Amino acid sequence: MSLALRKIFPGVVVTGVDRNPAHAEEALKLGFVDRVLEIEKSIPSADLVIIAIPVDATNRLLPEILNQVTEQVVMDVGSTKKIICDTVQDHVKRSRFVATHPMWGTEHSGPSAAVNGAFVHKAAVICNREESDTDAVLLVEDIYRQLGMHLVYMNAAEHDVHAAYISHVSHITSFALANTVLEKEKEDNAIFELASGGFESTVRLAKSNPGMWEAIFKQNRENVLDVLNEHISQLRKFKTCLEKENYEYLGELIRQANTIKRILK
Amino acid sequence: MSLALRKIFPGVVVTGVDRNPAHAEEALKLGFVDRVLEIEKSIPSADLVIIAIPVDATNRLLPEILNQVTEQVVMDVGSTKKIICDTVQDHVKRSRFVATHPMWGTEHSGPSAAVNGAFVHKAAVICNREESDTDAVLLVEDIYRQLGMHLVYMNAAEHDVHAAYISHVSHITSFALANTVLEKEKEDNAIFELASGGFESTVRLAKSNPGMWEAIFKQNRENVLDVLNEHISQLRKFKTCLEKENYEYLGELIRQANTIKRILK
Repeated sequence: MSLALRKIFPGVVVTGVDRNPAHAEEALKLGFVDRVLEIEKSIPSADLVIIAIPVDATNRLLPEILNQVTEQVVMDVGSTKKIICDTVQDHVKRSRFVATHPMWGTEHSGPSAAVNGAFVHKAAVICNREESDTDAVLLVEDIYRQLGMHLVYMNAAEHDVHAAYISHVSHITSFALANTVLEKEKEDNAIFELASGGFESTVRLAKSNPGMWEAIFKQNRENVLDVLNEHISQLRKFKTCLEKENYEYLGELIRQANTIKRILK
Repeated sequence: MSLALRKIFPGVVVTGVDRNPAHAEEALKLGFVDRVLEIEKSIPSADLVIIAIPVDATNRLLPEILNQVTEQVVMDVGSTKKIICDTVQDHVKRSRFVATHPMWGTEHSGPSAAVNGAFVHKAAVICNREESDTDAVLLVEDIYRQLGMHLVYMNAAEHDVHAAYISHVSHITSFALANTVLEKEKEDNAIFELASGGFESTVRLAKSNPGMWEAIFKQNRENVLDVLNEHISQLRKFKTCLEKENYEYLGELIRQANTIKRILK
């Protein structure tokens, strides 16, 4: 995001705050930030504070950050929204905060995971817009539009249900599939020589950061459990078809899955 | 494969055989084949017969093709090997057949799914090599090497176990995840506006051809069931962690999944 902001707003000064000194140094070296400061020293001179840390840390830090805010705009970019919005609901500076989720990410983390043009043509969700000041929302909307994103508005609870479906449970599936194959691999290393594109794309997300995802699953526990139960029952349908050699229904399940083509090009 | 063979062997004549006249015509138009013939007319003049059709059709056609073979080499490229090798085990021309599986594919099928440079740096499996004539194996090995592939040798039963792990169950997971989300989408179309890279890569395989995959699951039923059971029990571990709010073990499961990095770059 810093990479993109520098292009959009030439002359912008980007201050980095990172509890990991190696990441802070790397971000400086890569030219993502102009300087690195302690969080308390960074807020007073900021126009915009972007919180891009695991969602449990956001939940802890956001009230402290809002305590220090006068007219600054604060936005987060995390994968859960309800708990975070609930946490600051009654904060006196709540309206300076804009709850957002740009729908882009990879399995990598840290400064070296940055990608040029990452957000183009993706959706940016803004939650509970009515709880934020108009000028704050306008600034955040302008930034996302200039990043090439289209805006989607929903309430935080609704967002968390959708996120469970289209992101969180995909990650659990990948983690579980990786563990399934790794169990086998104990017996036989040759298996990975065969891994091709299909496997790699399904298991790619299994490389994702544990701290980040543990926090997401914790904050979105109930929705993730609902969707995970549905997913397991869908898998059981395939299992039953194979057990009973009901290939007609198996074909039907596959053709039903194929209709995802309508939606994903 | 035809695209690549034309580059490797200039002057080669490629004869297409396809029961779908639209695909045959398309292959001619795209320049993948020089001519289209009935199967009986295509075999006598061929040096090499490449069977690239669903595995149930291969199992049915392979003995008929071998009936017409004199000194031609016949190879298949399908995703299951045991049943097919068993079918022709006692065929008088068995040794002219080389059972192979180049580990490359996409969710697309038909002539328009062809990709230039598709096979480079992927593995090609040759099964039950000792059942094929040396000249036949050498020809097939030469082709795969010139396609840029590295060769892996195993017996057909072993291949089918590995294929269940690294390909077949990935497909079931994708089909089931697509169906999970499509169930939800009945209620709410907005969900797909949010779908980002992670979801797309996990669900990509759900677009795969039903006829092709039904046949694969049927032929590799027992291995697929074994791995699917393992996968469901891995998913249940995640479910139990969330139900019991055991985030320590959840983190452990994710870190275990992360070790896939060792193997998949």
